Amino acid sequence: MAVKSWVVSANSPECDFPLENLPFGVFRQTGGARIGIAIGDQVLDLCGCAHQGLLGTLPAEVAVACSSDSLNALMALGRSTWSSVRRQVTTLLASDSDASVRERTKQHLIPMREVRMQVPAQIGDYTDFYASLHHATRVGKLFRPDNPLLPNYKHVPIGYHGRASSIVVSGTGVRRPSGQTKPANSAEPTFGASRSLDYELEMGIFIGSGNPLGEPIPISAAEEYIFGMCLVDDWSARDIQSWEYQPLGPFLAKSFATTISPWVVTLGHWNRIGSLWQSDRRRIRRRCPISRRPIRRARALR
Amino acid sequence: MAVKSWVVSANSPECDFPLENLPFGVFRQTGGARIGIAIGDQVLDLCGCAHQGLLGTLPAEVAVACSSDSLNALMALGRSTWSSVRRQVTTLLASDSDASVRERTKQHLIPMREVRMQVPAQIGDYTDFYASLHHATRVGKLFRPDNPLLPNYKHVPIGYHGRASSIVVSGTGVRRPSGQTKPANSAEPTFGASRSLDYELEMGIFIGSGNPLGEPIPISAAEEYIFGMCLVDDWSARDIQSWEYQPLGPFLAKSFATTISPWVVTLGHWNRIGSLWQSDRRRIRRRCPISRRPIRRARALR
Repeated sequence: MAVKSWVVSANSPECDFPLENLPFGVFRQTGGARIGIAIGDQVLDLCGCAHQGLLGTLPAEVAVACSSDSLNALMALGRSTWSSVRRQVTTLLASDSDASVRERTKQHLIPMREVRMQVPAQIGDYTDFYASLHHATRVGKLFRPDNPLLPNYKHVPIGYHGRASSIVVSGTGVRRPSGQTKPANSAEPTFGASRSLDYELEMGIFIGSGNPLGEPIPISAAEEYIFGMCLVDDWSARDIQSWEYQPLGPFLAKSFATTISPWVVTLGHWNRIGSLWQSDRRRIRRRCPISRRPIRRARALR
Repeated sequence: MAVKSWVVSANSPECDFPLENLPFGVFRQTGGARIGIAIGDQVLDLCGCAHQGLLGTLPAEVAVACSSDSLNALMALGRSTWSSVRRQVTTLLASDSDASVRERTKQHLIPMREVRMQVPAQIGDYTDFYASLHHATRVGKLFRPDNPLLPNYKHVPIGYHGRASSIVVSGTGVRRPSGQTKPANSAEPTFGASRSLDYELEMGIFIGSGNPLGEPIPISAAEEYIFGMCLVDDWSARDIQSWEYQPLGPFLAKSFATTISPWVVTLGHWNRIGSLWQSDRRRIRRRCPISRRPIRRARALR
């Protein structure tokens, strides 16, 4: 049986943020942006915990990284550090924690409804992979009804660089883009608002630590570099895309916004979810931290 | 006649960095990275000047931005600030400057041969435009001999997001990439080092200040946002590119490195060069700050 937390809301079967999850995010309350960890309906202020010595025996550089306004510095410290922080926070929040630790930790809990979440990292680059045979076939049919899947698809990971600078956090309003399109019955293109706004629900992966330029990472070591995952809404203006995308790929049709969910669920937690999936599918449905809100917003905009 | 500088090397007809140019860059000598301005065979340490009150009556936020380790904060302050800084530095370095100012300024000059230049800004995103009809036709023939120029080319700016995180400064070694290619006479792709490494000499444009997401910038106001320009070597592995590029555009074939020149020549200077071009083409050849080194390196690698 899973360990409970003294944060009562975290123990509800409906809660996305039980003690086993502890995703990282960046929030604002009244002051500047701070790193937080979600627990139940609360956010644990990691900067406050670091300053109050609640992160235990972790090195000083970890406290500095936890006091940043983005996850980059923490992610750069590598997997063993991320794991240590989560282990320490699990200890602070577990129902069997020391009473005095609990009292000190409580001072750094903020109700989730009082904070605004923001994009959790400075994203230096992002790659949009054309993953899933079914998706590639389906989207390919939109642009090439007779030839949806190209010869390279089953051999090499097809992807392109997305626009890192227009990544926004879930809940940010997205303006319908204008652009050039060429209707099939017209000889010349026209300019105007997109009439085919679409969305793609994807999984986002945060690469935590990097590698020197030109040195490959073996696939067997890939997990060492993955900090965690979020949800992505890859907004797409299909009419703009079909006119502009050859030969260099999607560009303005995607560059108006890409929405990500604010909480980064660590890879360690996903691995545990995977094991759970084998043993108890009902429980996984309750524990899988997917917010339904972005999808409803997307539907409203179509 | 152009104003001379008391930095003697700046007045040589062969010099890329006369008083009219004053490009911005980021250098390292012994300590951390600092913003500098090139003058003759020297670099003026802008951080030092700011701390010694040599930037005159410019607001405190400008001194803070000039003390950064990248150009981003300065660029974010907008065109009137960039222009003010250059005007003030012109005053410091002009041959008619006050003798005491000259003595104080001298203390912040460092011989160019003693510094290492680095990428001058944190590049949040970069777009590679398929500019020039001739280039597009020529490159198009490599991949589509019968159909080099696609129907959209003359109607909409064709471009794609490049890999911001593999931009390196001129002089950085570039490793020949490995990747998947499919020789024409083979049914299956193979993996190995690229055999068709190519380069493209391009112009890089630094966008200084941004716009709120979703709000367009009118073309008539575009120059207000352009900080300056550099040279770009858009390295390309053509054999990898021809196999991977459909339908989403170039990806790994370009992601191994993109080289930029270290000095950002301001748009104001380019506009003056443009006027000069009309009146005196011989002089412009001497004043156009193009380094010949990256091209020689590229040839050596082919």
